[in-house]
Amino acid sequence: MRINRNYLQLPENYLFSEVAKRTREFQAHHPEMPIIKLSIGDVSRPLPAVVVQAMKQACSEMGASKTFRGYGPEIGYPWLRTAIADFYQKQCGVKLEADEIIISDGAKSDLSNLLDIFDPQATVAMCDPVYPVYLDTNLMLGRRPKFFRATNANNFLPMPNESVVADIIYLCNPSNPTGVCYNRAQLQQWVDFAREHGSVILYDAAYACFVREPELPRSIYEIDGARECAIEICSFSKMAGFTGVRCGYTVVPKSLVTADGVSLHQLWQRRQSTKFNGVSYIVQRGAAAIFTEQGLTAVAKHLAYYQRNVQMICQTLDKLHWSYVGGKNSPYVWVRCPGMRGAWEFFDFLLRETGIVCTPGIGFGTAGENYIRLTGFNSYANTRAACRRLLDLRQKKKR
Amino acid sequence: MRINRNYLQLPENYLFSEVAKRTREFQAHHPEMPIIKLSIGDVSRPLPAVVVQAMKQACSEMGASKTFRGYGPEIGYPWLRTAIADFYQKQCGVKLEADEIIISDGAKSDLSNLLDIFDPQATVAMCDPVYPVYLDTNLMLGRRPKFFRATNANNFLPMPNESVVADIIYLCNPSNPTGVCYNRAQLQQWVDFAREHGSVILYDAAYACFVREPELPRSIYEIDGARECAIEICSFSKMAGFTGVRCGYTVVPKSLVTADGVSLHQLWQRRQSTKFNGVSYIVQRGAAAIFTEQGLTAVAKHLAYYQRNVQMICQTLDKLHWSYVGGKNSPYVWVRCPGMRGAWEFFDFLLRETGIVCTPGIGFGTAGENYIRLTGFNSYANTRAACRRLLDLRQKKKR
Repeated sequence: MRINRNYLQLPENYLFSEVAKRTREFQAHHPEMPIIKLSIGDVSRPLPAVVVQAMKQACSEMGASKTFRGYGPEIGYPWLRTAIADFYQKQCGVKLEADEIIISDGAKSDLSNLLDIFDPQATVAMCDPVYPVYLDTNLMLGRRPKFFRATNANNFLPMPNESVVADIIYLCNPSNPTGVCYNRAQLQQWVDFAREHGSVILYDAAYACFVREPELPRSIYEIDGARECAIEICSFSKMAGFTGVRCGYTVVPKSLVTADGVSLHQLWQRRQSTKFNGVSYIVQRGAAAIFTEQGLTAVAKHLAYYQRNVQMICQTLDKLHWSYVGGKNSPYVWVRCPGMRGAWEFFDFLLRETGIVCTPGIGFGTAGENYIRLTGFNSYANTRAACRRLLDLRQKKKR
Repeated sequence: MRINRNYLQLPENYLFSEVAKRTREFQAHHPEMPIIKLSIGDVSRPLPAVVVQAMKQACSEMGASKTFRGYGPEIGYPWLRTAIADFYQKQCGVKLEADEIIISDGAKSDLSNLLDIFDPQATVAMCDPVYPVYLDTNLMLGRRPKFFRATNANNFLPMPNESVVADIIYLCNPSNPTGVCYNRAQLQQWVDFAREHGSVILYDAAYACFVREPELPRSIYEIDGARECAIEICSFSKMAGFTGVRCGYTVVPKSLVTADGVSLHQLWQRRQSTKFNGVSYIVQRGAAAIFTEQGLTAVAKHLAYYQRNVQMICQTLDKLHWSYVGGKNSPYVWVRCPGMRGAWEFFDFLLRETGIVCTPGIGFGTAGENYIRLTGFNSYANTRAACRRLLDLRQKKKR
């Protein structure tokens, strides 16, 4: 049996199991102190009513002869693709053709499966710290990525230079895990760099819905030349609470072609038509309901809820004089461990002193070794309680 | 931009567009003759009520704070995996551990994505005629598969021999497109052959639900040694009308290991956990409802409906003295073109004389050049009308 032996070189990701283990042990010793997880990377608010209603309606249709639907288009129903194209136009003035948008079961699948359409020998560059899926899917192909490090010295927004020339460049904006966001001028530099070197940018916009400052980009297609070098991957997971419903999409502009005229849009469409059979009709109806007036109102409330939590966390960090970035246009806050302690050491300190669980930054790459990630995805009540406990640390210190 | 240039070598699959084009042209010239499609490879009956009910319930849960669910396990919820394991035990006495079963969005995805866990240099063998996905996904990796031909000479059930030694062997049983089914003794030969040569069998059981004869296998794990060499891929598409709902599963036994002890189960679990985020909670609830008493009763009716259609087609072919195989344990009938005409020539003849649309066998490989595929997936009324038109051919001939 000739297996893919690159899998055997993959580092076991102990991060979340180790976090769970230490949390369990602490709880066993301190049953009086309720744990609060500010480590959550998942949504916790229910789906908008209009989405639930649309999906129930779709279920009913599937149960009746006249309205039953079998195989749908592998790349998504036209009404959903059109709704997304309209949203881009309204939200950030970006004009996309509906059929440049290809529906999928989520950004994680697309970010992984997109590698199929590139040369196995293609080189890749990505940020450190990074969403582990970018790294692991490339290690599975036997690749050794180049990294651009996000550090205090570059305000956690590394810019391109000759050391990261690569066929494929991953950008996550706003960033998971740091929560920072490139502005238009910075993204323009990345786009120009990609075009100069014939690179394709895989632009992960999963957190674009959290961008609040009007001068920041919501889509890479707001940038001149991006239609010639960038693929945008997005998801309804964080925007509308779809982490358990599963729907996302990828934009591959028709103007994205190789020097000899091969259309990447055609390649991706061929990949999806051959290896995928489309997203559940029921789920696509739910996704389309997001873009109704009622849906967008619900989404705005949904996002405001998490944003209020993040804001509260940031205000607390300010009072503590702890250094951090992110939070403003992101559900994530990237906190420097006070005294530049190691991530795990600070994780243990926080857990012991406050019962708060965070994510050690080292789980996202070596550049995270003195950082932790906090998120706004817990409930308002829990987040408030966590912030009080953090502020109490000042009293403890004085005592 | 360094793309996967194997994509440029893929043959454009004109089959279905050509079928559609010829059908359209005929209809334009003969508006008086209603077309009947016996080419359909999709289900047409609505979902069982118990499935619809379970999915609606799941939608409601997702709309309420207390019952909302975010990310589920990437490899599926335990209650669905357990339900499938129980079904195997009851249906064919096969004992599987629930966690040997990994849930996905369908057999097409799994059959394609499974290639990720094998060496890029691995060799493959498959039947001719064949479900085009097996072939195209391997061409995308630059592979040249070996073929074992299903012909009249081997009763369309080719057996292994040295010319098809390969790392990966595809078996579809009952077969798409021929509708024939290996018996246990024949499958035993394939399993022994695979074990002798260190091959892995990718066993596509998407049509196992149509097997009626008790002496025929429903699962490859009914065969001695299969747990050491075979991966079984299955789907609820044809069984319960899930083609538009999207759910399936793959069984990778824990006893399937390489000579140096690497577990293929672990590899597939790692692949899915890294590159996939699980199937919609709503869809998994629907799938679990299939295995309730009410669900299984509905499925039996559902299958009987299509089986009655296929039986009617076979009886008609018998009366016409047209040679065919399949139909008995499959929704598919593989018909030899009378006079060994070419598949497209006979397609045109049938369309012109009867208004019936079939699928030319050549679309599944060169071994299908004198065959067409008919299916039982249309409505009973349409299938009956089609059979009458076929019988009328005898009268036309006499006149």
